[in-house]
Formats: sequence, C-alpha cells, structure tokens
Amino acid sequence: MNKVNVSGLGITTFGTHEGETLKSLLLDACFQAIKEADFPKIDAVYVGNFMSGSLGNQEILGAIVANDLSLGAIPTVKVEGACASGGIAFRQAFLMIQSGEYENVLVAGVEKMKGAPTEVITNAINAAMDNDSNEKHAGLTFPGFFGTVANRYFYETGASKKHLAHVALKNREYALHNPIAQFTKPATMEDYMSARMITEPLGLFDCSPTSDGAAAIVLSKGENGVIVRSSGQASGTTQMQEAADLLSLPAVKESARRAYEKAGLGPEDIDVVELHDCFSMTEILSIEELGFFAKGTGWEAVEKGLTKHGGVVPVNTSGGLLSKGHPIGATGLAQIYQIVSQLRGTSCNQVEGARIGLAQNLGGTGAYSTVHIFEGVK
Amino acid sequence: MNKVNVSGLGITTFGTHEGETLKSLLLDACFQAIKEADFPKIDAVYVGNFMSGSLGNQEILGAIVANDLSLGAIPTVKVEGACASGGIAFRQAFLMIQSGEYENVLVAGVEKMKGAPTEVITNAINAAMDNDSNEKHAGLTFPGFFGTVANRYFYETGASKKHLAHVALKNREYALHNPIAQFTKPATMEDYMSARMITEPLGLFDCSPTSDGAAAIVLSKGENGVIVRSSGQASGTTQMQEAADLLSLPAVKESARRAYEKAGLGPEDIDVVELHDCFSMTEILSIEELGFFAKGTGWEAVEKGLTKHGGVVPVNTSGGLLSKGHPIGATGLAQIYQIVSQLRGTSCNQVEGARIGLAQNLGGTGAYSTVHIFEGVK
Repeated sequence: MNKVNVSGLGITTFGTHEGETLKSLLLDACFQAIKEADFPKIDAVYVGNFMSGSLGNQEILGAIVANDLSLGAIPTVKVEGACASGGIAFRQAFLMIQSGEYENVLVAGVEKMKGAPTEVITNAINAAMDNDSNEKHAGLTFPGFFGTVANRYFYETGASKKHLAHVALKNREYALHNPIAQFTKPATMEDYMSARMITEPLGLFDCSPTSDGAAAIVLSKGENGVIVRSSGQASGTTQMQEAADLLSLPAVKESARRAYEKAGLGPEDIDVVELHDCFSMTEILSIEELGFFAKGTGWEAVEKGLTKHGGVVPVNTSGGLLSKGHPIGATGLAQIYQIVSQLRGTSCNQVEGARIGLAQNLGGTGAYSTVHIFEGVK
Repeated sequence: MNKVNVSGLGITTFGTHEGETLKSLLLDACFQAIKEADFPKIDAVYVGNFMSGSLGNQEILGAIVANDLSLGAIPTVKVEGACASGGIAFRQAFLMIQSGEYENVLVAGVEKMKGAPTEVITNAINAAMDNDSNEKHAGLTFPGFFGTVANRYFYETGASKKHLAHVALKNREYALHNPIAQFTKPATMEDYMSARMITEPLGLFDCSPTSDGAAAIVLSKGENGVIVRSSGQASGTTQMQEAADLLSLPAVKESARRAYEKAGLGPEDIDVVELHDCFSMTEILSIEELGFFAKGTGWEAVEKGLTKHGGVVPVNTSGGLLSKGHPIGATGLAQIYQIVSQLRGTSCNQVEGARIGLAQNLGGTGAYSTVHIFEGVK
C-alpha cells in the first residue's frame, strides 16, 4: 500500500461571507491547497458538502471545481454524510491514493449557511434525521437531541452545566488566537451562564453556530511532511430512540478503534486532537469514546483542564466547531487542516513537539463518524 | 488487483409510487440485491442520489441503509454527481473492492420525484447547472440545452425530427417487454409527431420523464458470473456556453476511452449497451461518442435500425431513460442492472449470446460521464 501525505492546505475564514458565493469560497480554498502543493497533476476531486442543494440550489460541486480550476477531464465526486461529509470525503481520497488508483487528489469541503432564515436552516439540518422517525416530526432538533443527552449525563454522573462551560470557554480561548475563527471575542463564565438558553440545559455558548466557509487539502502519494497513518469510519443509529445508551456514541468509539488498530497506536500516543464539538456536551462524550478518559469521567477531566495544553491531550486547539465555526461540509477538513498545522509546527495554539494527531468528525445523531490519525515525519 | 463480480441485483418498478417513501424504495432494492447475493457480510455502502435533500428533506441515506438493514457499523457514503450519481457510486464501490479495501459492497441508487409540482422539480434539477452562469438565470433548462443541441445537429448534419423519433420509438418498443418500465403503452410515429412540444424540436416523447424508483447491486471480490472489466469516469464543462462544440459530449468520449483502454477492448467488442438517453438527441450523440458510429452519422445509424437487435449493437434494450423511466439517482444502477441481466441471459429483450456489455451514465450538461464495461464469464 502506498504511503499518503498532505501536500497542500487551504482554508477560508469561517463566519459570514456576504460578498462570496458557495463556489467562490470553495474555489478559494482549493486554489490555496493546490498552490501550496506546487501545482501537481490532480487525478481526482472529492468534495464534502451537506446542504448546497437544499439551501443554495447548487449541486455538481465536483465538476465545478475541476472545470473552474482547469484541472482537466478528471473524475470528481461530491460526498454527503451529514456533518461528517468532509471526513468521509477525505477518507475516499486517502483510500484511493493508498490503493494506487490515484497519486494526487484534491479533497475539499464547503458550506454557505448564513443569510437563510433560521427555520430554513433548521429544516435543512434536519435532513440529517430519518424522515420515517416520529421523533423528527414531533419536533426533535439537534440541540434537542444533545440537550437530552446532557440532561441524562448530568443525572448519571453528577456533572452540571459548569462542566459544559469548561468546554465552551476553553474552545473560545483557543479561538482567540486562530485567524480564521468565527468568534474571537473573549468570553467569561459570567457571559456563559447568562447567555440565552437554546435547549435546556444548552445555552448559546454550548451550540456551534451556522457558518460560511471552505477548506481544502491535497493528498499525495509520498512520505514527507505529514502523513496519514490511518482512516476509520463507522455508522451508528439514525434515530435517538434507537440508541441503546444515550451516554455513548458507538460510531465514534468504533471509528477510533479501527483507526487506532490500523495505525498500531492507542489514545496514549496522541499528542493533539480535533474532535466534533457540535455541542459542548458532544466534546465530553467524545473524549471518553476516543479513549482519552474513562466512560462517565469526561466532565472531571475538563474541570481539571486535562484537555488543554499541559494536560493529558489538548483538544480543539482551533477553537473547535463551537468557536472556530461549523460550515458543515468544510468542518471535517478544517479539523484536519488544524491537525496538520500542529504537526508541521505552524499552528495557532501550537502544541510543542506534537508528532501524532487525531481528527474526528461526526454526522447526524451519531449516524456517522470518521477518525483519521496523522504523523509528522520530518 | 482483485477481480470484481456482480453477486446480487435489486430493482423496483419505475414510475409513480404513491404509497412508498424514498426510504422504502431504497431498502426494497437493497434487500433484493443482498438476498440474491445470499446475504454476504457487507463491508460498505455507497448510495447514489441527487435530490433527496432538496425535494424530500432526507439525507444520510448511507447510514439509513446500514441501520435499517442491520448491516452493522460499516462505513457508508452518499455520492452526488447530478444524473450520473449512480454510475459514480458504482465506480467507488468497484475501485474499493479492486484495491482490496473491501470484499462485498452494496451500491444503490434512488430518487423520488413524483408528486412535487413541476416547477419545484425543474428547479431542483437545475441544481445540476452552475449558479454563476448567466444561462441558468436567463432560464435555460435541460430540455432547453438538449433542444439547442438538436437544432444545431439538424443544421450541421441534415438530420430531422424523424431521426429523434427512431430513437424514442425504439426505446418505447423495448420498454413494452420490461416489467419494471414506466411506459409500456405502444406508441406510433403518428403519436410521436402529434405529441406536445416541450422545447423545440423536442416533443414529449423526446424527453425522459420524472420517476420514482430504486436499484441496487452487490459487488464482490470474485470472478464468477458477470465481472466488471473496467471503469472510466471523466468531467466536462458545467455550462453550455463553455462547450467548444455543441455536437460533442467530451466527457462521454473520454470516459469511454479510459474504460476501453483499461479493459483492452474497443467498441467493436461490445455486444449490448445501455446509455444515457435523457433526451432522444443525447442517444444519437452518445452512440457517436462511444465509438459505435462516426461523428455526425448517428442519425443515419438509427434510421437504418443499427442500434436494434440484429444491427451493429442493440442500445437501451431496457427501454432507456426515455421509456423505462429516470429516477435520477437510480438510473446509473438500473443501466447496470440491465447489462448484467443481458450477460446472464435473463434479460427482457435478450440479445442472444451477449458476452460483453457497456453502461454509460451522464450528469449535467456533460459535466460528468461514467462508463463501465462488463463481461459474462460463465
């Protein structure tokens, strides 16, 4: 099997891009990545995106990239897997180079969500639930789902809203130093506690925002710089009512198990992590499912600062989805952008000496998870 | 590289399914295919779909299949490439088995289009054009695009509407014998000529319908029955105004060239073809681009009956998109269903002794094309 390395990175700022189109954001990130890779012959394009059809009446993003960047008559694919669309697209590209089918693949993610009315966006996001479930039609939303999870977690473990705050404020603090982050205004515990409630117990700071943005990566056959050590993907239930245990995200655990196994590594080897903090509660569950802390103890870890610099493992040094922003299709690639930057030693909130990094991307109510492990080799 | 064979086929009838949901159609076809394959351990799922998000507020089709058919926590992906979504999904599955990443992959396609108002469907289909093009906003539609192509073809070659009729009536005749076809009422040249005009010179019989339907295939590592000889995919322009020549579909030609080259075969080796007759005009261009007839002579070939049984190569023995129906995401897989059935000797409109078959799937205004070549080996 071929080794696969990251030869180029591109990203836009996350937030509101009033003067830009979905396409201009996408092409901007793609061009940056291709330029950084020094214009290799790109053999294929994979684009991760969730809602450009329903929100923007724009599909064929793969062909648009190939055409508008004059990449030639190459194969292109758009990939959808809810909020994990970017991670899944990355996995396809990685596997195709590993197998020898392609040598250089451009993988990109994009979303343009700002500007649409809230109910339109909420409706579009709910396409990540199963239409045949009564819970969707009864009014369940994603904040509703993770709010329910948080209440149950509090009940089972003794955690409280203060522990969610530790996650949200940590990620905001990291975002202050990330030039592409959506939220760069400092926030205090008082700001957090007095913020508007979204879904009990989740307040405004516990929920990732709607965002515009794009990220892109060129993957190449090779073993320089930062290499992809492994890829794991797993599925989980598509309905809340099917979850055997509200305090677990089995797809996260299983995708991590596969990625660890293929890399021959474990949680103890990971120096820096980006994980899918769509809600503050999700970060606490995910640090447990990824094996960094025992089940039901993540809240204590965040209280002790173990997910910051100098702790067990720094998590979401980009600011995470909560404060960097969450342009859905771009998120999985933006996480990888941050991990690769960390392993190159060029990141915001640099973790000194970071050699192995992990990126985890979630979709739906735990319906999809991807985990990718990276190593800096020079 | 591993050999890849087709171990299971599933399909629903095409047309109007009032009592069914997108999901029930998809699961029906998937279950048939898995059952025919005798319930192998499925390693991954790829689903081709174009508009379930915008028309039906339903994404995460990959996870739904894995979850509802109890396939386990396997990786799943939804693939979009406009009307070529099915062919592109099939290609991913094929490459993943060929490389050894997976042994059995379920690939499916689905669309539910009936019931929505015409303007809603037309708008959703137009997501396959580039939003940044003035032609889309000036009112170009897909019938408008292929109508323009037909007028130019008539002007350049001397062909006339009668030649389009030969395609449409041939495909209707084939559909009469296909139990899953949407249109099974016989049609005469008089019916054709008196039909309602859609976009000059294309009348009702020249345009594929909106349809509900699903198709599914299990691909496995192996060399029994019908094997996949090769896969070719190419991109083309995403705007009509960028086409260097309105009488060509370069992505069709290039995807065929790649598939022929990888298979070590040429057009002369092909015994039976399914190609993307979204409009009658598209079939005439495509028999030229696939190399069966010289450029600018397809109209003479259809007049002489050379694309029927006993001619050069029978084309669209399923009835094609025009008469079998065109549930967009399912189309690429339904074409392959027909070719595999032909090579198994179990098809409607059976081509006696057919050993090598070709399926070609188009997306957008020529933005995507896939070509797959199959061989019956037992």
